[in-house]
Amino acid sequence: MADTTLPVIEGALLKVAQDKGFATARDRLEVMSPQCGFGELGTCCRICYMGPCRIDPFGNGPKTGVCGLTPDAMVARNLLRDTVGGTASHVGHARHVLLTLRDALNGKAPYQIKGVSKVMALAKTFGVPTEGREVNDICRDLVNIALEDFGRQDELPNNWISKRAPAEEQALWSDLGLMYSNPHNEIETAMHATSMGNDADPVSLMLRVLKMSLIDGWTGLTLCVDLQDILFGVPEIAVTEAAVGVLEENSVNVAAHGHNPVLSEKILEWAEKLEGDAIAAGAERINVVGVCCTGNELSMRHGVKLAAHNSQTELILATGAVDAMVVDIQCIWPQLAQVAKCFDTAFITTDAMVRIPDAIHIPFEPHHADESAREIVQKAIDAFRRRRGKPVDIPRHKSTAVAGLSVEAIVDLLAKLDAEDPLKPVIDNVANGNIFGFVGVVGCSSIKFRDNAMTEEMVKHLLRQNVLVLTTGCTAHICAQDGLMTSEATYRYCGDGLKAVLEVLGKAAGLDGPLPPVWHMGACVDNSRIVDLMVALAERLGVKVGQLPAVGSAPELVQEKAVSIGGSFLALGVSCHIAPAPRILGGPMVTKLLTEDLQELTGAVVRVELEPKGAADWMIAHIAGKRAALGI
Amino acid sequence: MADTTLPVIEGALLKVAQDKGFATARDRLEVMSPQCGFGELGTCCRICYMGPCRIDPFGNGPKTGVCGLTPDAMVARNLLRDTVGGTASHVGHARHVLLTLRDALNGKAPYQIKGVSKVMALAKTFGVPTEGREVNDICRDLVNIALEDFGRQDELPNNWISKRAPAEEQALWSDLGLMYSNPHNEIETAMHATSMGNDADPVSLMLRVLKMSLIDGWTGLTLCVDLQDILFGVPEIAVTEAAVGVLEENSVNVAAHGHNPVLSEKILEWAEKLEGDAIAAGAERINVVGVCCTGNELSMRHGVKLAAHNSQTELILATGAVDAMVVDIQCIWPQLAQVAKCFDTAFITTDAMVRIPDAIHIPFEPHHADESAREIVQKAIDAFRRRRGKPVDIPRHKSTAVAGLSVEAIVDLLAKLDAEDPLKPVIDNVANGNIFGFVGVVGCSSIKFRDNAMTEEMVKHLLRQNVLVLTTGCTAHICAQDGLMTSEATYRYCGDGLKAVLEVLGKAAGLDGPLPPVWHMGACVDNSRIVDLMVALAERLGVKVGQLPAVGSAPELVQEKAVSIGGSFLALGVSCHIAPAPRILGGPMVTKLLTEDLQELTGAVVRVELEPKGAADWMIAHIAGKRAALGI
Repeated sequence: MADTTLPVIEGALLKVAQDKGFATARDRLEVMSPQCGFGELGTCCRICYMGPCRIDPFGNGPKTGVCGLTPDAMVARNLLRDTVGGTASHVGHARHVLLTLRDALNGKAPYQIKGVSKVMALAKTFGVPTEGREVNDICRDLVNIALEDFGRQDELPNNWISKRAPAEEQALWSDLGLMYSNPHNEIETAMHATSMGNDADPVSLMLRVLKMSLIDGWTGLTLCVDLQDILFGVPEIAVTEAAVGVLEENSVNVAAHGHNPVLSEKILEWAEKLEGDAIAAGAERINVVGVCCTGNELSMRHGVKLAAHNSQTELILATGAVDAMVVDIQCIWPQLAQVAKCFDTAFITTDAMVRIPDAIHIPFEPHHADESAREIVQKAIDAFRRRRGKPVDIPRHKSTAVAGLSVEAIVDLLAKLDAEDPLKPVIDNVANGNIFGFVGVVGCSSIKFRDNAMTEEMVKHLLRQNVLVLTTGCTAHICAQDGLMTSEATYRYCGDGLKAVLEVLGKAAGLDGPLPPVWHMGACVDNSRIVDLMVALAERLGVKVGQLPAVGSAPELVQEKAVSIGGSFLALGVSCHIAPAPRILGGPMVTKLLTEDLQELTGAVVRVELEPKGAADWMIAHIAGKRAALGI
Repeated sequence: MADTTLPVIEGALLKVAQDKGFATARDRLEVMSPQCGFGELGTCCRICYMGPCRIDPFGNGPKTGVCGLTPDAMVARNLLRDTVGGTASHVGHARHVLLTLRDALNGKAPYQIKGVSKVMALAKTFGVPTEGREVNDICRDLVNIALEDFGRQDELPNNWISKRAPAEEQALWSDLGLMYSNPHNEIETAMHATSMGNDADPVSLMLRVLKMSLIDGWTGLTLCVDLQDILFGVPEIAVTEAAVGVLEENSVNVAAHGHNPVLSEKILEWAEKLEGDAIAAGAERINVVGVCCTGNELSMRHGVKLAAHNSQTELILATGAVDAMVVDIQCIWPQLAQVAKCFDTAFITTDAMVRIPDAIHIPFEPHHADESAREIVQKAIDAFRRRRGKPVDIPRHKSTAVAGLSVEAIVDLLAKLDAEDPLKPVIDNVANGNIFGFVGVVGCSSIKFRDNAMTEEMVKHLLRQNVLVLTTGCTAHICAQDGLMTSEATYRYCGDGLKAVLEVLGKAAGLDGPLPPVWHMGACVDNSRIVDLMVALAERLGVKVGQLPAVGSAPELVQEKAVSIGGSFLALGVSCHIAPAPRILGGPMVTKLLTEDLQELTGAVVRVELEPKGAADWMIAHIAGKRAALGI
């Protein structure tokens, strides 16, 4: 058992909320508990009106649904719909960025191409000619290649996965029937297949889960990040700060929350432009801070400070210091609008798809991005004017954090050690054991796991064993807030081997001390950066990704998106730790498939561990097995 | 309270099952009861891992989900996912037919264009030139118009809805933001919007339900039926038989079950071709019978006999007389494979999306349609060989039934009364009250409602009040089995006005007696035929569809598809009776929206009535209101 160590910042915020007497998600969870066991085990089906059906996995009561659906098929069908929810979210995000880029290239949206190096790199990947061509023309070709994937009804391989994913893995996916053509066809088919009276075979359904996850990985994450880097630039290493202490009593605090930088990039731009208005209103400045993955996007590209992860979103409003919380898409708790009302905070929704009762809705779409962003920032200044002079309650704690570790930034850094073969220093240190392995700690922050600081504690156990931690999403916020993205953390938590490597890298990076041991690689969609890094290492070593001493972990799973991301890791052969248990335990065959038999298909397994040390121990052992297989 | 009147045929089949000692869906429902109240009320959410959340609508326990989602938003979000399940099913079916037609035109699939009149009619609708052109070329243009809808990322109006739907209603849908461009974008967006932390506004979510339902109506049903008529011909009036008594002890009985005629048309073709083999095996002939909507498709175009609706599918296997049950897509209970095993019935799945443990899987795709269909029919002959001489238990009951009432067939018939203005006789009889109104009785058959013969009893109440009943799907099977598609039914059940009209029509059709009072218009997708008929009547009258004295009814709702079909009626302004209650009762605002306030938006409301007479009475009153408003 790990110690119970409610993080300082959460403790402080909860106290603020408690003092002000309002209920939080923890209170709502408490009255909701015990939660429905059928739901938790996955053996609840409401897909048709012969149901709702529920199957007690201990064998009391019905053995199948009314239609005859077995518990295994039921959990697999539910899991597939979850995966569709996640994949549709990422594909929708990617498509939005794609259309914004198209519009920008056609002069219809006020965005410029900031990631010329990314355009050139992708042109090479996709075989787009560059010689003597304008960047915008090259980029237009890339846009058309991506658009083709959404329009095709020809069953030819999807461009993005077939050009961006490693070849050997593609061959495996092809053998398993997991390759796809048009991602939209597959989303439609998965919803069709899960409707009453279609796919009832748990194995077939689970293969569909993997296929849907591949779509998430390559048409969701990878396409999205590729295009975001084109539009907004490839992240470079930068130092920022994290935790609610980044709010400033005397500034206009604008908290940007959500996932899609198409909005927040403009908010940042207009916050600079309207600084004069803010000062005129009595503020020191406009302080744009980042929440959830929008925060990660801004910190990666602009060093914007990280204010809160998802399960702190209502808590930071309780400080009374947030003048405007402006949200784009995904993970926006409807409760936020209610909390904002208590503090006269302008809670602003912007996306047609995210309507929340009692929110201020300012429609934001790329064609009129500047007008909307200006209006939003002005709303924040107005709110500051009303707040000015009133008491606020900002817990002091904050930590510095290094962010911006895109693959390009990492390779640039490594090139300072070996310009000819940048990955060699990493590989040498993996071989000699200084780097025991890699864990991608990704996904959400969950109120079910914050009380024992699941993520932080697990990460510290890993660092002690010389495991380098790559992180994204809300787990990146957690690590940043806990000081794990500092040089001090390297000294304090790492085993000697990892410490030595990070010291060399820190020197190469021109930092005062070692590179932090937890690398902030971005938002949830940026899990594709972790994959790109692993693919590069595997290719350099001449092995498959699944052979690397690497594991994925979603230690505080909340969102459907995390399910589909996890599936994309599994399809790549990367085993995953997960907590809590996915909703499959009511299906013994599906449980065995994911925890054991998948090994035979893709080389990966799922492991559920609810305690930080148990999780870390399993990952260390798994990595040790991979090392042994590689003979290192 | 209606009398409890378990239909003869179900009683007989249940006895067979009972005698043979196997459990049926009724038994499974019994052990499943009482079913989960949270699920039934719609206030169960398993979308993220902060849940599962459940909200007691009586106010005990939590008032919202952990994220703050209100009960209204929760039921609306769940309803939207149900509607996506239904719409994705119909759109997937339509797209399959579209690609089959494209392949047929390119000589890659062995199908011919049988519905030349439909090609010409659609060419006119879509402005495709026909003068001096080959039918296949015209058809290719139509295919490209349909394909364009799936590929577009331009936000221009969807071709199919904008050319096929009535103009005035389109203007309303446009005002409400319900018009769509690419159906696949909308399916993706709906799944995205319903994932955690996106749309939380019940009104916004319910508008999405209507939008998704319009996609179901026009890109699902209408596109599908238009193209099926092109490929397989426009149905013409034909006499057939219905109920399990259509099985023949000494024939090779092939039960075709599912929804997509791309398979069953070929089965029928090969059943004819291999008749010699069947006779050689000792059979009198090959008896292809129709189950569920595949049955309706076959009966509409070929007069194939109707053996069973959905909730009889396991029961007819208990006769021991079905040699092969071959299934395509949708509403295929996984239990069928288990029952088939008890009787040595070849239970054959064919679609990649419909895999069922213990089924024989013979992959069927249009490119190799003939080879697969031949193999399937041979499997049936083999099974007959094994069955020959063994006792079977076929309940005797069957009824004759008139089928094939496509809009074209109806108009042809009416043209015999008034060649210049075929719809005039109908309109005159509506005006004079001989036809009091129209009810589209559609959807599923539910074991929850068969014991009191919900559909049959409700229909009889309607007929007595001179309401003409149009039916599709499993309710068509129910009506056919109960003899409601016969001339006798007109004499026995209709009010005098309706009887008089049907007598005139029967004479025009060259029948021995009056036209039946319940018109078999096809499968579930053929609900677009009912809509086409209503649109034609409304246009002829110069009113909106919602002003007609017409109501929809899904008296035995089972499938998600029925939810989205119902939504498409509501969007058209056609009120709907439904039983059981949709899973919205836990959300008071959504309940009021659907049962009252929707009137202000589209002119339609939803009414839940669980008893046949109550349902009929409400519909009669509703129609009376519409008549009064029209001044008739």
